[in-house]
Amino acid sequence: MADLIQPRTLKGFRDYVPSLMIPREEILQKARAVYRSFGFAPIDTPALEYTEILLGKGGAESDKIIYRFKDHGDRDVALRFDLTVPFARFAAQHVPALGTPFKRYHMGPVWRGENTAHGRYREFWQCDFDTIGTTSNSSDIEAALVINALLSAIGFERFEIHVNNRLILSGLLEELGLADKSTAVLRALDKLPKVGIEPVVEEMVLHGVDAEKGRKVLELAGFKGTNEEILAFVSAKFGNNPKAADGVKRLDEMLQVANQAGLPSGRLHIDLSIARGLDYYTGTIFETFLSDLPGIGSICSGGRYDNLAGLYTKMPLPGVGASLGLDRLLAAMEELKILGGVQASAPVFMVRFAGTPPGVYEKLAATLRASGIGVEVFPEPKKIGQQLQYAEKRGFRFALIAGPDDFASRKFKIKELATRQEADYDEVLIPSHLRKMLGMDGS
Amino acid sequence: MADLIQPRTLKGFRDYVPSLMIPREEILQKARAVYRSFGFAPIDTPALEYTEILLGKGGAESDKIIYRFKDHGDRDVALRFDLTVPFARFAAQHVPALGTPFKRYHMGPVWRGENTAHGRYREFWQCDFDTIGTTSNSSDIEAALVINALLSAIGFERFEIHVNNRLILSGLLEELGLADKSTAVLRALDKLPKVGIEPVVEEMVLHGVDAEKGRKVLELAGFKGTNEEILAFVSAKFGNNPKAADGVKRLDEMLQVANQAGLPSGRLHIDLSIARGLDYYTGTIFETFLSDLPGIGSICSGGRYDNLAGLYTKMPLPGVGASLGLDRLLAAMEELKILGGVQASAPVFMVRFAGTPPGVYEKLAATLRASGIGVEVFPEPKKIGQQLQYAEKRGFRFALIAGPDDFASRKFKIKELATRQEADYDEVLIPSHLRKMLGMDGS
Repeated sequence: MADLIQPRTLKGFRDYVPSLMIPREEILQKARAVYRSFGFAPIDTPALEYTEILLGKGGAESDKIIYRFKDHGDRDVALRFDLTVPFARFAAQHVPALGTPFKRYHMGPVWRGENTAHGRYREFWQCDFDTIGTTSNSSDIEAALVINALLSAIGFERFEIHVNNRLILSGLLEELGLADKSTAVLRALDKLPKVGIEPVVEEMVLHGVDAEKGRKVLELAGFKGTNEEILAFVSAKFGNNPKAADGVKRLDEMLQVANQAGLPSGRLHIDLSIARGLDYYTGTIFETFLSDLPGIGSICSGGRYDNLAGLYTKMPLPGVGASLGLDRLLAAMEELKILGGVQASAPVFMVRFAGTPPGVYEKLAATLRASGIGVEVFPEPKKIGQQLQYAEKRGFRFALIAGPDDFASRKFKIKELATRQEADYDEVLIPSHLRKMLGMDGS
Repeated sequence: MADLIQPRTLKGFRDYVPSLMIPREEILQKARAVYRSFGFAPIDTPALEYTEILLGKGGAESDKIIYRFKDHGDRDVALRFDLTVPFARFAAQHVPALGTPFKRYHMGPVWRGENTAHGRYREFWQCDFDTIGTTSNSSDIEAALVINALLSAIGFERFEIHVNNRLILSGLLEELGLADKSTAVLRALDKLPKVGIEPVVEEMVLHGVDAEKGRKVLELAGFKGTNEEILAFVSAKFGNNPKAADGVKRLDEMLQVANQAGLPSGRLHIDLSIARGLDYYTGTIFETFLSDLPGIGSICSGGRYDNLAGLYTKMPLPGVGASLGLDRLLAAMEELKILGGVQASAPVFMVRFAGTPPGVYEKLAATLRASGIGVEVFPEPKKIGQQLQYAEKRGFRFALIAGPDDFASRKFKIKELATRQEADYDEVLIPSHLRKMLGMDGS
């Protein structure tokens, strides 16, 4: 026999074993249900694209991290590094036929050959949703409602959606005479929570901003208070600037509608300091923080942009959307110990005994599945202790135990594995009993 | 403005627009539910692996089609070309900790840089399931039950699972003194449906098989009859050969159990001629054909193998499994015209009028979503005709129409878009009416 090949994954890549994949599937399923409940439709795009398409929007940053190579036809191709650029290409190609507004969600892996420190992976999942083809504030507000529904559905109760509007920041910069420096100022401002005031001012000065004006920006952007106080503050200071006024109006409407739609008070939190580093945001900006794990950073971020696909089409496509970071979310759930550690994908385990006629277990299992109850039948008639050990290790909730005598008397034992409580039931009553014990029959 | 970049996908790659992605999500969701109902647990592996790992099992064929390149760390890496090889690597790495039997499903894209003729794509999805760590025939039988449940859940009624056992073919070859030529003979036999008898005999002769013996193989493998007749025929001809006898016994047990588990008669179809080209199958073999589209080929194939991961570990891992070809299935559904063409992911569309207080639509929509009814609210107060046109084009089932006066009187119009029937309902009755009209309240 030849030497063995060492089984291993690449640095920065990982396998999803069932105890990690089961929660991932659950989150994706919940996200899918929420996106659909708001009318977002699913799309997918290829993992591989022409490099030209993927790097069109990127800066030096994406050039460095992209997985790029020549394919069999000597084409310059690369793996997508986010879902936004492929969506821009998709929109340019398909939206003329599909029409606007176009609301899509897209969930899939992306690849970045970057530093793997701090639990970063080189392959990770994004779950994006966007509405394009409209500038209506209703879509910005809806994005906030979606983020709220998403995290609620996943099971979080304590989280805050930080929201800002770049129009306010733009108005502020106009009033300070810094409109021409806005990219540099906003990029610097975006680093405030990480690096603190002085390094941000320094960065602004490096870009030719007067230090005093820089401090003024930070002072205004750092204003804290209730949502109402912040909006009143902006109106008082910059109410005459049309952009700032429009930003205030849009945020104010978002607060009103969110309240009508049943969001808990305090869920939306106006934060003038969030700017997002990406140049293409032009209006509403979102970042979402878990109250019990603020340090992990924003788990769902996004905002409004003026034009999604300007590199590929002359059709103007304004829009708004956000991206849920699935792997960061899973890491958070691991840290908060709200992952179950369950490896079993069905709730019921069926022990197999020797000496039973062929098909008796499979028949009973088919009956249970027809009642909506997932059941795994052990493949070999091993010792019952070994089989139950397997079932316990995998996290099954119930074991169904039926030997040859039981099939004669048509009475089977249901054992709850956690409590080890067990009782005999008549064969015909097994499905309804299990449904009840699994809480499947509603209230 | 710079020149536009032409928006396009690579040859052999495609976008999934909503009308294609909605059925893909439905199939995946149904497959997931079926796999789980039998206790298979989900896993995922990286798209990129060390080339050494991926090519370990492949022959010259995989070498040619694999997407291979050097990563940033100068590692020789490649995109997976199937889910079996990564599973073998995964099993070698994780099964010692996870234990056996280990039942997993894995659904994801694979990449092959091959000829794109005949609607083949270079990126396509596979949905595999396998049970490893047991030689029990119960697992082979379960695989047949899973294939049956899978296609039934997806909505097919007319399909046949062709089943064979390589033990019978091996026994037959032993009896004909061709045991040492079995790989060549089985590879040739696998081409029978495509090329016909004489070319298969020719190929066998090229590999040193006596032409008369080759014809004998084809005659025996081509024997047709009922399942019972075929098993009786094999028993009569080769019943003394232990391998053939074991193969007959395993197939016979599969028929009995399938019958007990409620499979329609005729669903399983013993076909001694199916061999599958892949060398690693050693026992049961499956191929699945749609009765209304036999020409599209097998849409779910697999079988039993003696050792999954011999290249990566000394631990013997026998198993059985099969793979559902998602894109072939979608192509079949397109051809059979059983794809709905629906682009809407929610059933209800809500028209937005100007002049309503902020949040009234979002509040009503939140109430509907809380009742489990997906609803898309149009973002802009455009003309009602334009909004309804959008809703009809996308395939929404109902439109909810409520202008400022309706909010005052708390009566809204529900319009069924296909029939254009409409009626007014009191606000509080809207959710229950819609649930009823959507058939959501059970029987």
